[in-house]
Amino acid sequence: MVELIGDERLDYLLAEATMRIIQSPTVFAFSLDAVLLANFAHVPIKRGKVLDLCTGNGVIPLLLSRRSKAMITGVEIQERLYDMAIRNIKLNELDHQLSMIHGDLKDMPKRFGNNKFDVVTVNPPYFKNNGLTEHNQNEHLTIARHEVYCTLEDVIQALSKLTKSGGKAAMVHRPGRLIEIITLFKKYKLEPKRMRLVYPKEGREANTLLIEGVRDGSPDLKILPPLYAFDSEGNYSKELEEILYGAHQK
Amino acid sequence: MVELIGDERLDYLLAEATMRIIQSPTVFAFSLDAVLLANFAHVPIKRGKVLDLCTGNGVIPLLLSRRSKAMITGVEIQERLYDMAIRNIKLNELDHQLSMIHGDLKDMPKRFGNNKFDVVTVNPPYFKNNGLTEHNQNEHLTIARHEVYCTLEDVIQALSKLTKSGGKAAMVHRPGRLIEIITLFKKYKLEPKRMRLVYPKEGREANTLLIEGVRDGSPDLKILPPLYAFDSEGNYSKELEEILYGAHQK
Repeated sequence: MVELIGDERLDYLLAEATMRIIQSPTVFAFSLDAVLLANFAHVPIKRGKVLDLCTGNGVIPLLLSRRSKAMITGVEIQERLYDMAIRNIKLNELDHQLSMIHGDLKDMPKRFGNNKFDVVTVNPPYFKNNGLTEHNQNEHLTIARHEVYCTLEDVIQALSKLTKSGGKAAMVHRPGRLIEIITLFKKYKLEPKRMRLVYPKEGREANTLLIEGVRDGSPDLKILPPLYAFDSEGNYSKELEEILYGAHQK
Repeated sequence: MVELIGDERLDYLLAEATMRIIQSPTVFAFSLDAVLLANFAHVPIKRGKVLDLCTGNGVIPLLLSRRSKAMITGVEIQERLYDMAIRNIKLNELDHQLSMIHGDLKDMPKRFGNNKFDVVTVNPPYFKNNGLTEHNQNEHLTIARHEVYCTLEDVIQALSKLTKSGGKAAMVHRPGRLIEIITLFKKYKLEPKRMRLVYPKEGREANTLLIEGVRDGSPDLKILPPLYAFDSEGNYSKELEEILYGAHQK
């Protein structure tokens, strides 16, 4: 059995009766955005190499392993979270497919070399760094949510370098940063090809952005149907329910 | 009474019992996109100066005059369409508020000077110019739909130059060109601030893009709720019906 540390919990990974995930409300717990990104990203089904930056407790590699046999590596800069991710691999007996690296995403192009992965995913910190002391959070959550160790440009530069020519890079972020994201994707030769906007419910502005670029791709963006998180009664929408529980119900 | 030429028709402008518009299936007839742009654009209500580039038969100035007392000028490069626009102003007795210029949008910054308008709108040609002879259309429609006389960069450069610092520029286009549009908006200091996507119906990719930038604005994009054109039975959606007929029903 895998050890739990401090206030860590052993949660179900969505409705997967066979998959569990270690998380902690004060260190790292996966968000809906991670689930949406894992659902949105194109991944090779049978083989290939996938990298997940800012992996946290490894939730995205765990989710992707449900629908891909590719080798999936996660990168996490916080040792405490890396350690959770390692235990999550063991817990789910996925050592043959998943691996974790404790390190800075900015060092990964040097470590792996350029153009190495078929797919690179990232759920990066969303907020600009205004100085640690301003944030009413503990250090682990601050680093996960604010651009303390990496800027948006660092993230997108690493995404681009690590993705093979013709390979795909997928990101989840806030719509307010879309213009910066597109500008940086273009700067680093990731051509945005597929975008999806998530709205909390009908009549509201989008609050989550999913975007996928192809390294050295030709311009032609598709904007997928909108995804609503909740219906008018505050329940999960049918589509979100399918994403969260679909695999279980089948 | 205003003269009709060739196959021109006198149509109702939406459900406005008091407004009519001259158009022709072979020269220029206004599209849903023009109506959507006129609905989307912010315009000053009581005073100010508005410019509409690629105005065609003047449909957007006519529509904007329903909700703005600003002075509105249209610019059209095709003399045949400019002439229709002039007659549309007369027909609707809007000479005190609306005016038309026969000319090339690229010459307008020199003509007016830079930073002159509170709002500039444009429903430009959507398609790249692959040579006139490829298009299975007459010359008037080809020029309105293809980048024969102006490229997307010409359009956005003119938009930017003509808009006051802090003023708004609004455009309708295809989602496939979003990345180019954003890149050019940024190049010419129009900060994208508001975007709306139009979907033909639920479950389909977006087919129309509405975007508004603020000249010299600070970055922060809002993505408005999606607009569906049709419901699942193929009828206009409630919101589109409100845009098309709302003013009439009230």
